[in-house]
Amino acid sequence: MPDNELLHFEDFAVGESRDFGRYVVTAKEIKDFAQEFDPQPFHLDEEAGKKSILGGLCASGWHTGAILMHMMVDGYLGRSASLGSPGLDELKWLKPVYPDETLTARFTVLAKRRSTKTPEMGIITMLWEVFSTGGEKKMEVMGVNLVRLRQP
Amino acid sequence: MPDNELLHFEDFAVGESRDFGRYVVTAKEIKDFAQEFDPQPFHLDEEAGKKSILGGLCASGWHTGAILMHMMVDGYLGRSASLGSPGLDELKWLKPVYPDETLTARFTVLAKRRSTKTPEMGIITMLWEVFSTGGEKKMEVMGVNLVRLRQP
Repeated sequence: MPDNELLHFEDFAVGESRDFGRYVVTAKEIKDFAQEFDPQPFHLDEEAGKKSILGGLCASGWHTGAILMHMMVDGYLGRSASLGSPGLDELKWLKPVYPDETLTARFTVLAKRRSTKTPEMGIITMLWEVFSTGGEKKMEVMGVNLVRLRQP
Repeated sequence: MPDNELLHFEDFAVGESRDFGRYVVTAKEIKDFAQEFDPQPFHLDEEAGKKSILGGLCASGWHTGAILMHMMVDGYLGRSASLGSPGLDELKWLKPVYPDETLTARFTVLAKRRSTKTPEMGIITMLWEVFSTGGEKKMEVMGVNLVRLRQP
């Protein structure tokens, strides 16, 4: 994609909110991710999930975060002049993510500023929220997208 | 594992620190994870990584987090009466994780208290740090492990 068609720092406005993404996570994907990264019983087995306080087989929180990341890259970051991220803040896993739920996401631009050290870099503080199609909020997290300036 | 052999809330002491885990992440694993969850050029391609501010092909931050989770389950959580986690705070991706680096982790117990709503549940606030074997700190994050009490 030509650079001038990419979203740059200037294209995000403080207060702006946008819905993006759609992701259905299957029981197999939940178990495969858990097997590799988070092999706790409630992420591996339906019966163990039912017996746990989570109420059923559900995705690892890191899986839900990775799914948010997927929706972000698909939804706007993949066509932006993204430079990465230094971190996150106040990540809340509010409700378990169960198999075959359809997830969507929303970002809200909380703040933005130019980097003082790196003139071509913009620092955008975002709130991201993940919902099920039923409207239940599953996860929310604040964090930073580093995005290049169009005109440093 | 019999319940009395599991680590319970009572077995974690505030101020306690423990090293755990060992994980080598390959270029293939970095690219596979990125393909599925974080397909940004610097997580998919060596040349794109070199051209980016990250200095080379490097793991998605969500991948590094998932690797920490793997080391946690392997290192102590898998033989504990774990009940899950409600969230994280102040997650910092301090340095890029490159292929074939050996990662290790450390937890420090920052605080602990019994749940007021759920008498059998303990809430342990942890600091987790991820290092390369060269001693460089790659990531740090605070968060909560919910762990069952031995004697509610």
